[in-house]
Amino acid sequence: MKRVIFMLAVWLQASMAALGQSQALVFQSDFGLKDGAVAAMKGVAYGVSGSLNMFDLTHEIPAFNIWEAAYRLNQAAPYWPPGTVFVSVVDPGVGSERRSVVLKTKTGHYFVTPDNGTLTLVASSMGIDEVRQIDETTNRLQHSQASHTFHGRDVYAYTGARLAAGIITFQQVGAVITTGIIQLPYQRPVSENGKIRGTIDILDVQYGNLWTNIDLQTFSQLKANPGDRLNVVIAHEGKTIFHDSMVYGKTFADVPEGKNVAYLNSLLNLSIAINMGSFSGKYRVGSGNDWTIEISR
Amino acid sequence: MKRVIFMLAVWLQASMAALGQSQALVFQSDFGLKDGAVAAMKGVAYGVSGSLNMFDLTHEIPAFNIWEAAYRLNQAAPYWPPGTVFVSVVDPGVGSERRSVVLKTKTGHYFVTPDNGTLTLVASSMGIDEVRQIDETTNRLQHSQASHTFHGRDVYAYTGARLAAGIITFQQVGAVITTGIIQLPYQRPVSENGKIRGTIDILDVQYGNLWTNIDLQTFSQLKANPGDRLNVVIAHEGKTIFHDSMVYGKTFADVPEGKNVAYLNSLLNLSIAINMGSFSGKYRVGSGNDWTIEISR
Amino acid sequence: MKRVIFMLAVWLQASMAALGQSQALVFQSDFGLKDGAVAAMKGVAYGVSGSLNMFDLTHEIPAFNIWEAAYRLNQAAPYWPPGTVFVSVVDPGVGSERRSVVLKTKTGHYFVTPDNGTLTLVASSMGIDEVRQIDETTNRLQHSQASHTFHGRDVYAYTGARLAAGIITFQQVGAVITTGIIQLPYQRPVSENGKIRGTIDILDVQYGNLWTNIDLQTFSQLKANPGDRLNVVIAHEGKTIFHDSMVYGKTFADVPEGKNVAYLNSLLNLSIAINMGSFSGKYRVGSGNDWTIEISR
Repeated sequence: MKRVIFMLAVWLQASMAALGQSQALVFQSDFGLKDGAVAAMKGVAYGVSGSLNMFDLTHEIPAFNIWEAAYRLNQAAPYWPPGTVFVSVVDPGVGSERRSVVLKTKTGHYFVTPDNGTLTLVASSMGIDEVRQIDETTNRLQHSQASHTFHGRDVYAYTGARLAAGIITFQQVGAVITTGIIQLPYQRPVSENGKIRGTIDILDVQYGNLWTNIDLQTFSQLKANPGDRLNVVIAHEGKTIFHDSMVYGKTFADVPEGKNVAYLNSLLNLSIAINMGSFSGKYRVGSGNDWTIEISR
Repeated sequence: MKRVIFMLAVWLQASMAALGQSQALVFQSDFGLKDGAVAAMKGVAYGVSGSLNMFDLTHEIPAFNIWEAAYRLNQAAPYWPPGTVFVSVVDPGVGSERRSVVLKTKTGHYFVTPDNGTLTLVASSMGIDEVRQIDETTNRLQHSQASHTFHGRDVYAYTGARLAAGIITFQQVGAVITTGIIQLPYQRPVSENGKIRGTIDILDVQYGNLWTNIDLQTFSQLKANPGDRLNVVIAHEGKTIFHDSMVYGKTFADVPEGKNVAYLNSLLNLSIAINMGSFSGKYRVGSGNDWTIEISR
Repeated sequence: MKRVIFMLAVWLQASMAALGQSQALVFQSDFGLKDGAVAAMKGVAYGVSGSLNMFDLTHEIPAFNIWEAAYRLNQAAPYWPPGTVFVSVVDPGVGSERRSVVLKTKTGHYFVTPDNGTLTLVASSMGIDEVRQIDETTNRLQHSQASHTFHGRDVYAYTGARLAAGIITFQQVGAVITTGIIQLPYQRPVSENGKIRGTIDILDVQYGNLWTNIDLQTFSQLKANPGDRLNVVIAHEGKTIFHDSMVYGKTFADVPEGKNVAYLNSLLNLSIAINMGSFSGKYRVGSGNDWTIEISR
């Protein structure tokens, strides 16, 4: 009788584990949502395990834009618990010699992606614990070898799903990479002589706000308090596009509607907005390394 | 032995509950799907409980458009079972003094949102059981206090997830609000002298149909039957934009392709369409309180 | 005691089944993501069963475009496991006499949809096991009879959810249809005299690639190897739009950036692209039966 109960308990625990203990699997790509590509990836993952919890980061990364892929991963990943597996597929070199890798960060997050710079920012902010190259002889959807243009489906979704479901361990992904991963060039903010110089990393596209690379620590050197005015100069390839002072507010509503405001965004980087308006639209400001910003009191 | 079985059963029931009895958590926002904002909210919720069932209502509410947020909630919420928790974040006043609240309706649905008018229509159609103000000293993501511009992530997703997962009760959200919630002004349809006057509440954007505020009960006073012709006048700020008669059909296909048709939409409000075409596009009709419609036989 | 254990095991197995053994439910429509329509469908499905695994194929099928609905189903469905239930709602004839059906394919997949041609391609590629007409007297959301324009919510989501959750069997959908389903006309590729003629079935919209109907088997008759040059002629209504040779590559990166390339896409159909560019944008090429392509060595 005891043996019956024991076996019942073992079977149940195994079943519960299968049902409930998968890690979240989060997809990002530049595929858009208009066709069947994202659903093909999720179908492959669901075929791996029916108890995965799947989510989307975004699939609206502009086509081939690896920098934005890197940025969006870094924007969202820290809010997911350790163990979460991210599959990011912005992959203009699909089918070429670029490597396919899984990064495990010091925080315990996993990133499955082509090694093309996508990992630049999470590697820096979350720390590299280990990177492994995906061994496609064992980690590839069966019967997919004839296809050379959709590793998102055939390699990344498949491997991410097996990792998230616990079917393979991180070690079973493939051999450790010891030669480093591809890093995109990017700027760090500079503080000197009471001025902070940075770049406009990206636009908060939905609202037209500018998100700079000036982090809280660097900005703190200005010793500005909410309510103070800041002098803001924005330039494109060295040519001044905008030069004016504005309030440093805690939030948009600290200035009247239609007024400019500097604030710390949700990642605690200095940002520029119009309350209830689009700064990037009004002043035709873009993002990237050639868009610079200088802040002073 | 009986005790062993009993404890096994208790443990299992608790485990099953943890796995299966969360309420659905449904997100709405004006964030769009191009960046990491929605995924940051879901990551926070997933960190609260890995067994939540998360869904999206829409994230394409036009930026700052509280009326449309109110409308879309009211369009979808009645089709979800009681207990469902909606998190709606169209929040131009984020970080200002506007309150953060949870509405429990008489139907047993929950709405987590800034108190800025978003609740106008569901409060009316589903009834207010009780409204509580979110106490951010207990209901806020840990270590998020330095951020003032993303309460969707730090307060609403976090609180909605804890409520849906049963980690907090509705009472633990915060104190009851007895002073009423913010209501957007909106029109009711009027029937007199054989004419019904209403407004065009919103566009059925994907197809270009007009959705009016003329509900089934009001429309019934015309005693029109499918196949009858209706006289339709549409005006913008009092100026007539469209004046013609059209068939009142049960569905689009009751008129030939390209012909105008009046019908009851999926919410049983009177609507105007072109079969296989876009009425709002062809006649340049918009929506809002200044777009009026008059119907007669 | 044995009876207690037995009943416990029965109860647990039933609970596990309820929690874990639903089939995936995958939605497709032309509703877009801007309003509450998709969420209303999912709410109905969630009301049927809280343990369904719901996914989206796409909701961005162009309005009323049944061909594209058929294509996207066929693109994604083979990557989902047998038993998966697809609900596809591109339904310009909603409320008219068109039938509502469920197709079970020979591969064990289910498709719930209006019978308007949506099933054309999956019926061909996955094979018809049986088609049943939905009996709306038993398979329709309660109290939804007054609505005639949203069968996606009232009939298809409801029936798909009940089928995926195991609440009804396939037989309980309704009577078998023995008269065939609606088929859209489409072309097969032709190979003669060393030339292959086909049509441009659809655009890979996110990148601007052309996806033809020339499958691997037909293309093989050219005996082309990666690295060979192909002669490509594209015509619209018989008028030549493009005529040039290009490399047949395994993937985009086999040619320099900005160069044209012919390749086998992720469905192993012949396709035309510009590496890191948009072929359809540059040469203004569209898709459909009047867009033809001719390939030779």
